[in-house]
Amino acid sequence: MIVALAGGVGGAKLADGLAHVLGRDLAVVVNTADDFEHIGLHVSPDIDTVMYTLGGVANAETGWGVAGESWNFLDQLSRLDGPTWFRLGDRDLATHVLRNERLKRGERLTAITGELCRRLGISARVLPMSDDPVRTVVHTAEGPLAFQEYFVGRRCEVPVTGFTFAGIENAQVTKDVQAALSGGETSAVVICPSNPFVSIDPILHVPGMRALLLARDVPIVAVSPIIGGAAVKGPAAKMMRELGLEASSKSVAAHYRGLIEGLMLDHADAPLSPAIESMGMKVRVTDTLMKSATDRRRLAQECLDFAAALARPGASP
Amino acid sequence: MIVALAGGVGGAKLADGLAHVLGRDLAVVVNTADDFEHIGLHVSPDIDTVMYTLGGVANAETGWGVAGESWNFLDQLSRLDGPTWFRLGDRDLATHVLRNERLKRGERLTAITGELCRRLGISARVLPMSDDPVRTVVHTAEGPLAFQEYFVGRRCEVPVTGFTFAGIENAQVTKDVQAALSGGETSAVVICPSNPFVSIDPILHVPGMRALLLARDVPIVAVSPIIGGAAVKGPAAKMMRELGLEASSKSVAAHYRGLIEGLMLDHADAPLSPAIESMGMKVRVTDTLMKSATDRRRLAQECLDFAAALARPGASP
Repeated sequence: MIVALAGGVGGAKLADGLAHVLGRDLAVVVNTADDFEHIGLHVSPDIDTVMYTLGGVANAETGWGVAGESWNFLDQLSRLDGPTWFRLGDRDLATHVLRNERLKRGERLTAITGELCRRLGISARVLPMSDDPVRTVVHTAEGPLAFQEYFVGRRCEVPVTGFTFAGIENAQVTKDVQAALSGGETSAVVICPSNPFVSIDPILHVPGMRALLLARDVPIVAVSPIIGGAAVKGPAAKMMRELGLEASSKSVAAHYRGLIEGLMLDHADAPLSPAIESMGMKVRVTDTLMKSATDRRRLAQECLDFAAALARPGASP
Repeated sequence: MIVALAGGVGGAKLADGLAHVLGRDLAVVVNTADDFEHIGLHVSPDIDTVMYTLGGVANAETGWGVAGESWNFLDQLSRLDGPTWFRLGDRDLATHVLRNERLKRGERLTAITGELCRRLGISARVLPMSDDPVRTVVHTAEGPLAFQEYFVGRRCEVPVTGFTFAGIENAQVTKDVQAALSGGETSAVVICPSNPFVSIDPILHVPGMRALLLARDVPIVAVSPIIGGAAVKGPAAKMMRELGLEASSKSVAAHYRGLIEGLMLDHADAPLSPAIESMGMKVRVTDTLMKSATDRRRLAQECLDFAAALARPGASP
């Protein structure tokens, strides 16, 4: 059993590769701090990206939402002067409406996600980091912004000064995540190439999560989301610069220092290896850019090989 | 000012004719006992039919919903094993989602309907019969059925034995309906050719509604929804037979006896005039089938002329 931690697009791609290699022997713990309430509907962007990607129905054109999407709901919403800044597709809405109904009935996000995944034919377990509401607040020179306001509404243009995760102090690790992380059959944890600040950090900050990750003697490896000083997708590199950090995999390594045993870098970042290894972790260099399904599976297999190589002799398999 | 009482398609067509003739001088009181909660969304089928028809965006092909509709939400819902027996179109959903959000926020259905109507460019006032939940229960040999379960789920196939309106005892006439009905400028009430049992009766059974209708000395005229023993659309004639009534405009007259001063019949039913007039009401015969926009306006004008002719000399204008 392998546990992956993931946020949006990049994380979902590696999770998809892992799911192809591992089938049912994968649990993906997903960030829910991007979740928000929009026109009365609960929207879980990262869960949906992971779910649609693993279900093979992700929209490759947009990078989010469902393939074969149409926009008539949004068009009509616009005629009715409803809010259209967050683009909900007609197919995507089916997920939000079904999920919302069940949440309002008092069901847990984890149970609902599990059922949606079964319906999409997903064998891996997709686990929200928590069933309790956590909301990323992006601190900027203009003041605090809700995550989607920053990410979609302002297109990440406002310089950031930091992040907080509202509600995190009361969020609990679910029994499902706990079982996945503390189960004897779990042999490695893979931190996917997601944004360290707004995708992975919320997961790591759920009270008790880091302790659970460190308690078991299994290797934790991360794949850097930065290649040659740029993020493959999203604002990770831009955020690093705005936070006064070097926009490089070195900052990723520093961020995960003390947690991970290994970091996978792209060939473009091979020269950073000595500096990163001096931070007390192993480095493996490969092609980390995932352009095809084959890339996803190859990188997934390399992560598993890397983790296996890092497993201490005599540790649980 | 004219007040119309209306349910679904037939009622909406006459209301549309009246709106063209009267503009802002029309208030349409609409049945809400068909409303129901579906996958967490509040759906108001009769209000929507009236609103879409008056807004010029009704779907002429289906007879309900919005023109230019697409069905990708429903298709995706089906993939996710969600309920698809009630067909929600992608455009139609914009209404349900917006309305639902506002209802959950505690806004009144009347206020929400007013705003949606303004956005659709409707000058007439579309007024829910009540802001309080009323639900038609269709009694059948198989036991009670919720209205949409009977109407859509069972396609009206189960023979009916009667109807009750759950919640009606606690429903209040809204201040908007009260103002429309008791206002000094109101000169007639038109009961549209809607189903007397499940569209008009719920309106009439809201406590205080009948008294309000009868308190003012203005003529009340109805248009029979039955032509030659058949309903133009819907189960009205079938219901009459199942209830042991004659499927004819005579049963419509008997149903509204004591409330209306005049009944408009189609030429096909002209022979029934003497029997109906003997029930204590006037009859006017015309073409009541509305196939075109012109038909709607002509019938609307004829209703207004009929009502004017019935107004007692010396009564308020």
